[in-house]
Parts: sequence; C-alpha cells; structure tokens
Amino acid sequence: MTFPPAREKLQRRAGGTLVIAGLGPGHVNLITPEVSTALAAATDVIGYIPYVARIAPRPGLTLHASDNRVEIDRAQHALQLASEGCQVVVVSSGDPGVFAMASAVFEAVEAGAPEWRNLDIRVLPGITAMLAAAARCGAPLGHDFCAINLSDNLKPWSLIEKRLRLAVEADFAMGFYNPRSNARPEGFGRALTLLKQICRDQRPIIFARAVSTEAEVIKILPLQDAQPDMADMRTVVLLGSSTTRLIERAGPPLVYTPRSVSL
Amino acid sequence: MTFPPAREKLQRRAGGTLVIAGLGPGHVNLITPEVSTALAAATDVIGYIPYVARIAPRPGLTLHASDNRVEIDRAQHALQLASEGCQVVVVSSGDPGVFAMASAVFEAVEAGAPEWRNLDIRVLPGITAMLAAAARCGAPLGHDFCAINLSDNLKPWSLIEKRLRLAVEADFAMGFYNPRSNARPEGFGRALTLLKQICRDQRPIIFARAVSTEAEVIKILPLQDAQPDMADMRTVVLLGSSTTRLIERAGPPLVYTPRSVSL
Repeated sequence: MTFPPAREKLQRRAGGTLVIAGLGPGHVNLITPEVSTALAAATDVIGYIPYVARIAPRPGLTLHASDNRVEIDRAQHALQLASEGCQVVVVSSGDPGVFAMASAVFEAVEAGAPEWRNLDIRVLPGITAMLAAAARCGAPLGHDFCAINLSDNLKPWSLIEKRLRLAVEADFAMGFYNPRSNARPEGFGRALTLLKQICRDQRPIIFARAVSTEAEVIKILPLQDAQPDMADMRTVVLLGSSTTRLIERAGPPLVYTPRSVSL
Repeated sequence: MTFPPAREKLQRRAGGTLVIAGLGPGHVNLITPEVSTALAAATDVIGYIPYVARIAPRPGLTLHASDNRVEIDRAQHALQLASEGCQVVVVSSGDPGVFAMASAVFEAVEAGAPEWRNLDIRVLPGITAMLAAAARCGAPLGHDFCAINLSDNLKPWSLIEKRLRLAVEADFAMGFYNPRSNARPEGFGRALTLLKQICRDQRPIIFARAVSTEAEVIKILPLQDAQPDMADMRTVVLLGSSTTRLIERAGPPLVYTPRSVSL
C-alpha cells in the first residue's frame, strides 16, 4: 500500500533509521507511547500482513506487508531501505525480541553488507503474548518460568522434547508460543502427551487466544483434560508449575503461582 | 501523602475495583495507555516507595507508599480499600505478574475474606525489565529462554542452583531478577561461579541497570569475566545460550540469539 511520498525526499536526506517495534498483543491501549511515536515518524512500515494491517495509512508512509516465513527477506528489505535514508519501522506483534522479528533482523545484519552494522538500529519492547495472557487470568507466571517456541520449523523436535522434560524437572511455569499451525498439526499433540506423562498431575493449563482483541477466548482447565485442538496459530499456551493454584469464585477462576517454595 | 478527597464519596459509592498495574522499567514512554487510564481513575495508589514516587499527586488521589518486603500487608490493604468501594491501583515496576505484586495479591485473596474473591480485580501487564534490557542490546532472548529470581528470601538456595543447572542443560537464554541486594551480598557470586563452571564458554552476559532511566548502564561482557559486584538491586542480568552471538561494530556490540538451532 503506497501513498504519495510527499515528505520522502526530506526525510531520506536526514539519515536512515531502523526501529524494530512491538505492537503488543492486539489492543491499541497496549501499545507503548514510545512505539506510537516511532510509528508517527516512520516513512516505511514493514511486517507480516496482519501486523501491518494494524497501522493506519497516512500520506508520506509506505506500508510494506509480506507473508509469513519470509522473515529474512523482510529484514533485508528493511535494512536496505534504512541504508538508503528511510525511517523504517519493522512491526511485530507482542515483543519483537520474543520469537519475533528482532533476531531475524540481526541475523540479516550479521550476514549482510558491512555498512548495515553501523545503521541506527533500535528495538522497542512491547507486551508479549505470554505476559498479556498471564495478566488475563491472574499471575500464573508469578514464580520462575520459561518460554518455549513449539514450532519445529527452525529447530529439531527432539530439542523441543528435551526442553519440555528439563523445564518440568526445574518446575518452571511455562509459556508456549506457536503451539500449532495448519502446516504443523501434529506437534502440539505430541507435546501435550509428553507433558501429561511427565507432570502426572492436574496443574492448570491455559489456552489464551487473541488476547486483548474482540476474538479473545481464555480457557483454563486441568492439564490432563487438555486437547490438541484447543490451540491454533493465534493461541499462546501457559502451563503452571507444580505449585500453581486456582482460586474458585463466581466467574472464571484466578490462577496464580505463589512467590514462595519450601522444599 | 493525602490530598483533599473531593471526589471520594461519589467514587466509593460506585463499587470498588482493584487494578494491579505494571509501570514498565522506568521511562514514562514505556507505560501503556491502559495503565495510564487506570491511574487517572484511581482514588488510591498503593506500592513500594520508589514506584509510588513515579505517580503524580492530584486532588482526589491518595498515595500509599510502603517499604520493601511487606508485600502481603500491602496486598491486604489494597483488598480492604477495594472492598470498601475505592478504585485502587497497586503499582509494580515492570510487569506485575513477573516477580512483582500480582502473586502477592492473589496469595492474600486466597487466604483472606471470602468476599475478596469476588472483587473486580484486574492485572494490567507492563514491560518487564528482562525484555526492556534485551531490547537495549539486540535480541539476546530471541530463542527459548527462562526467567529466574535469584533471591533466596522465598525459596531455598538449593532450588536456585538446581534451576540454573537445568536451564544450562536445556540451553535456555536466561534473565535473572533480583541478583543481589545489601541483605544478600553472597548469592550472586555463587550463582556466577556455578554458571562459569557449567557453561565453560564465553557466551555474553549482560548487566542492565536502571534500564530506560537517566541512570541506565548496560555492560556486555564474556561470562568468564563477569564479577559479582557488577549487579545490584536495580540490575537485571541476561545470560546468552550457547548459540548467542555478538555483532561487533562502532559503539556497543549487538547481542542476539538466532532463531534456528540445528543439532
């Protein structure tokens, strides 16, 4: 989507910048003022189609939306535009440093043109899905926790299983990103089966879909009742530690992990 | 600090609420609009002294600042005020669900008066220190990672050591909260000694102090060169995984953990 680049020449002369910004989980009230300011100054916004769709078009701003799984192409495009003098913002949902675009940009920097290293590159944090989901149901990540990307697109499945086993042994609460997609329908079922076997208890598991949007759905249930089709690409999954507790009340329960552990 | 409660009676009639809000790491531009809106509607703000000091006084707002380590007292006070009809905001720095006030409030709910369970309680997420620090130096948490509170005030030191060993075995990047305080000067040195022994490499470690404030200092160095006195109560420490990389350039290096792992 291109608008008349009225301010373009002036801005390109001023020296390019590359901002990698987190838009949070969905609601505009969860976007930090720092990110809003960067977006207001951008000449070019680059990202995955549904994230770029969250940016309001305006004169002088070019929106570059691209499909999933082309992160390195997208990162190179952003670096190229910044090196030409554009004010570029790469948008991610959530936090750009958590299973999002920041690492892809730095991979492209390291492998790319030497002058890219000295570009003005800044990462602006955002509210990551795991923490937005946790807040919606209490404080399930209130003690030590870990975050694991369940996609085996970029790592072997055996490593995911190893990390799940060790995370249970460490008794971390856990946040799982990318639990399930159309291209990977089987992995999450294997992960759930493994977790049910090694945890052997009814600790709470939370399926948080599209948190903070109109499509938000939060399900809280005992781990042993969880089913693979409860997750999709828009779901983040949280699993309690052995100490995580449920407070029953009118309406959805509160889930929290106490701050204390005594052995 | 109390101001004339001009609007107090009206607001107390409307039904009490308890919001547990994250103020982010320090800079006002990292506070979400959602949190700002909640603060603007509050009759009472409760929290640890330096966090309450970040809230601007105004007529109709009572600020309740309390000392460290009285989290349960503070939580009970907040619940009591909300049950009396006040619009209460408990403030934490960072994200309230990450080693902050949310779990303390839910502990107090579970142990407290039955009617507290049915109060209108909401947690509003914030930018947690670990992710703010990561953004300032690249994307060190760009792959699977864990967050560990290094304080042994509320858990045995042996559990901290066990988690550090398992986290290294899982090859997580790591974020360490509360690494060191005047009351616990020794623990962080023991943690560093252990990590140096089991990692046996020069992966980057990051000491990020007072991120986003005027006192911000970020140190990036090889793990084996880290010293205990590089951390204090205002420092969050990030440790790379075995795959974390450094991109040298003019100025501070970029640190990132690649998205891919091949075995």
